[in-house]
Amino acid sequence: MTTTTTTTAAANGHAHAHHSHHNGASHTHHHHHHGPLTEKHLNPAIVSASYAVRGPLATKAEQYRAHIKAKGDAHQLPFKSVVTANIGNPQQQGLDQPPITFFRQVAALTEYPPLVDDPRAEALFPADVRARARELLQEVGSTGAYSHSQGVPAIRQHVADFITARDNLPPELASKPENIFLTAGASQGVSLILQILSTKQTGILIPIPQYPLYTATLAALDTNALPYHLNEGDDWGLDPASVEQAIADAHEKGISPRALVVINPGNPTGSVLHKPVMKAILDICAKNHLVLLADEVYQVNIHDPTREWVSFSSLARKEPSDPKMAIVSFHSISKGVAGECGRRGGYFELLNFPPEVTAQIYKMASVGLCPPVQGQIAVDCLVRPPKQGDPSWELYEQESTAIARALKERTETMVSRLNALEGISCQPSSGALYVYPQLFLPPRAVEEAKKHKQEADEYYAECLLDQTGICVTPGSGFGQKEGEAHIRLTVLCPGVDEYVGRIERFHRAFMQKWA
Amino acid sequence: MTTTTTTTAAANGHAHAHHSHHNGASHTHHHHHHGPLTEKHLNPAIVSASYAVRGPLATKAEQYRAHIKAKGDAHQLPFKSVVTANIGNPQQQGLDQPPITFFRQVAALTEYPPLVDDPRAEALFPADVRARARELLQEVGSTGAYSHSQGVPAIRQHVADFITARDNLPPELASKPENIFLTAGASQGVSLILQILSTKQTGILIPIPQYPLYTATLAALDTNALPYHLNEGDDWGLDPASVEQAIADAHEKGISPRALVVINPGNPTGSVLHKPVMKAILDICAKNHLVLLADEVYQVNIHDPTREWVSFSSLARKEPSDPKMAIVSFHSISKGVAGECGRRGGYFELLNFPPEVTAQIYKMASVGLCPPVQGQIAVDCLVRPPKQGDPSWELYEQESTAIARALKERTETMVSRLNALEGISCQPSSGALYVYPQLFLPPRAVEEAKKHKQEADEYYAECLLDQTGICVTPGSGFGQKEGEAHIRLTVLCPGVDEYVGRIERFHRAFMQKWA
Repeated sequence: MTTTTTTTAAANGHAHAHHSHHNGASHTHHHHHHGPLTEKHLNPAIVSASYAVRGPLATKAEQYRAHIKAKGDAHQLPFKSVVTANIGNPQQQGLDQPPITFFRQVAALTEYPPLVDDPRAEALFPADVRARARELLQEVGSTGAYSHSQGVPAIRQHVADFITARDNLPPELASKPENIFLTAGASQGVSLILQILSTKQTGILIPIPQYPLYTATLAALDTNALPYHLNEGDDWGLDPASVEQAIADAHEKGISPRALVVINPGNPTGSVLHKPVMKAILDICAKNHLVLLADEVYQVNIHDPTREWVSFSSLARKEPSDPKMAIVSFHSISKGVAGECGRRGGYFELLNFPPEVTAQIYKMASVGLCPPVQGQIAVDCLVRPPKQGDPSWELYEQESTAIARALKERTETMVSRLNALEGISCQPSSGALYVYPQLFLPPRAVEEAKKHKQEADEYYAECLLDQTGICVTPGSGFGQKEGEAHIRLTVLCPGVDEYVGRIERFHRAFMQKWA
Repeated sequence: MTTTTTTTAAANGHAHAHHSHHNGASHTHHHHHHGPLTEKHLNPAIVSASYAVRGPLATKAEQYRAHIKAKGDAHQLPFKSVVTANIGNPQQQGLDQPPITFFRQVAALTEYPPLVDDPRAEALFPADVRARARELLQEVGSTGAYSHSQGVPAIRQHVADFITARDNLPPELASKPENIFLTAGASQGVSLILQILSTKQTGILIPIPQYPLYTATLAALDTNALPYHLNEGDDWGLDPASVEQAIADAHEKGISPRALVVINPGNPTGSVLHKPVMKAILDICAKNHLVLLADEVYQVNIHDPTREWVSFSSLARKEPSDPKMAIVSFHSISKGVAGECGRRGGYFELLNFPPEVTAQIYKMASVGLCPPVQGQIAVDCLVRPPKQGDPSWELYEQESTAIARALKERTETMVSRLNALEGISCQPSSGALYVYPQLFLPPRAVEEAKKHKQEADEYYAECLLDQTGICVTPGSGFGQKEGEAHIRLTVLCPGVDEYVGRIERFHRAFMQKWA
């Protein structure tokens, strides 16, 4: 396997530019200090960062959508609607995955407490919803007050209880609320942890392909992203040897790896890790004193019933490679069957963090004051959904089962129909919310992309958008080997037959045009 | 006037340590790269940051509160309740400023849309609330969906309309939605803008005293905080000469000032700027190509009817010192009479930003996906409150008037009673939510503080907390001149007589003890 890699421009340019920046940039930029504000005056690390998931294609898709809205039937575009398959945003307009009713009833009552005990509202809200709202208001006070910077203590206790139950931990290994930090979505937590751990001399190991939050944040922090490669031929599996190779490469460059990011289930790959691989990863972390950053936001999105998802912290607690190994585990209300992206809620758990490091994390969390309280309340609902026998149980069960089933069916349909196309090879997606096919594009199409100063998959994705209204994220945004091309599509779009049909027609025409 | 300054440890240590860090730190820290995670491995800029508003005193206050809750009447502390006067958090438990009903009714309906058209809910929600919720849901889709990274377009249009109306701008100077960014509170916006503008060679001018978000963020970014001094003897006024002095000082150190932070009304000072001073500040920004960062989150909190608050952007639009001067204006749902801190909403407006700089800001906003949607909805309520004639008008008017009156009365009571105490001098507070008295403490108390390795005001504040349960923020957290001592108290505590009484008794005893 070749180790040549094209990650995002940011991750790549960054790794190469790092030392020259510190030796030369202050002189290079010196003449730009004065005069009216321009891009040349900005933080160079920020300018170097890139984030493709909401990049130029996403902006163009929004323009098409606005155009159709403004012009109505007279829009004259070659498609009838814009489909945003570029980002995992289940409830957005056009996808319209319904929220879980229990979550929203609790939200409404906590926002407007006079309803909780208003007899006129009794018919509108089940008794367990009212009881939950009453209990949360007791703990939270007002949703309009800053909470504890780490999150409402009672909600952190509920998160800890959830982890203990989920991982079936014995009392002596139970999760503790003082190690839980509630966040504005997992992204904010990841960003905070990367900020704390970044130094000039160290680096963070990240998978390729990866969710570009990692490369963008590390570029903005002007620290070192150390890529290791997932194995597409093995269902995008993680070969521990590739991590060891990346560690050796880093040391050769004088960079000391400090942490290892693993996304499980994988984004964009959909891969779910096997337990022996996880064990090997923990061994590598132990041996190299790496902090393991476990991005586990898709833990509920498992489409393949033969794949069991296990948390890294559970394994580390029960079968420790090193009983002192530091692990951060991230979770979110945005994915799973909740899909509550806009409410910005999530948490991370610190395992084996020394108190003085936790204190630094707390300090930085406190500068941001607190995570959104309504997002915290949604975390409470996520970790304490209705139980069998509760008035809300039946509806909750129906809603979550229907969402999970739709995601599974769409994933399977998309993988099999994409694989039936010439020039596309798509690994099965056992988890998460994406399929990530590889494209084998004709050389003439690759040449044409170069003329537009685009990567081949960027060009393909832009043509797809222009001709079908479907917005996807090109693989170049996630990192891939030189010469490869991929696209990431979400499995969130309803009407999967019509939607995949559009892709099939486009793809066949594209391949024919450039054959 | 002496220019010797003690700001926070962070701001201070930072300014001095900056160059040595870049020359020497990589060697100093090299032997710490390996081994289990400790504070020594962390980002040194993060470790150097400090944030006193939620520092050790706030933590101790929480412990006292938990102790009283756990032990009940048997708590044996020398006070009956903990009063958190350290942070502007109006709705927190114990302060319990009621939320504006209109805000919360709109919040409840947008969280649980089936209520909007449920006939059983008609008696519970006025018609204008239901209409607003319907309109917002049309634009937002679901509160659970990521919005546009810059914020929901329609809400940004409403913010732009609000600014245009507030500042009475003619159509050719009207505010535009493409220049509005909705944020998770003003803090997130400030942090984003500072991150974008920070470079190693440039610096940001900040007032002393200042809200420590600025020093903490600049320290974490490892960039240069350039302090200018407010004039306590002149009601904490801003003397433009002090800004010019700070600019000259920076140039002497080889640092090029890039931006100027002004907090108006002031935090912690409560000072409201006069128009001629603002004009002079704009002239200085024009001459030095400074981006003006106008922190205007307290714009509604004006207690002195003779002081008119004017926005910097209004002045810059109507009487430009330089028609191309870049300004950022920050606003928030957390302060004013709304006090919706926990919902994390706010916005900033960019004036005269080149499109390529706006694009960089958008990119970084998109890495964080979007501000909390419910916070965005609260921004909509802030900029479009009920109008005269609307069903919700009368209640809205009653609620907001009552809150504003209480804040004004408490401010006046606190200033006058604190000024009546020996060893305290408190400037009038024309705006914002704080009083910021200077303490003239006996030399023996200052000596005692040194024994505890504390600043004099830290020691005073800790004694105040231990003996009365009142938590305030010491002036050393905001920056002050060597040898000075201040405390910041919020004007949010109900029962002002009892509360100030506790302070008076404590203060007299303290002065006597150390006389």
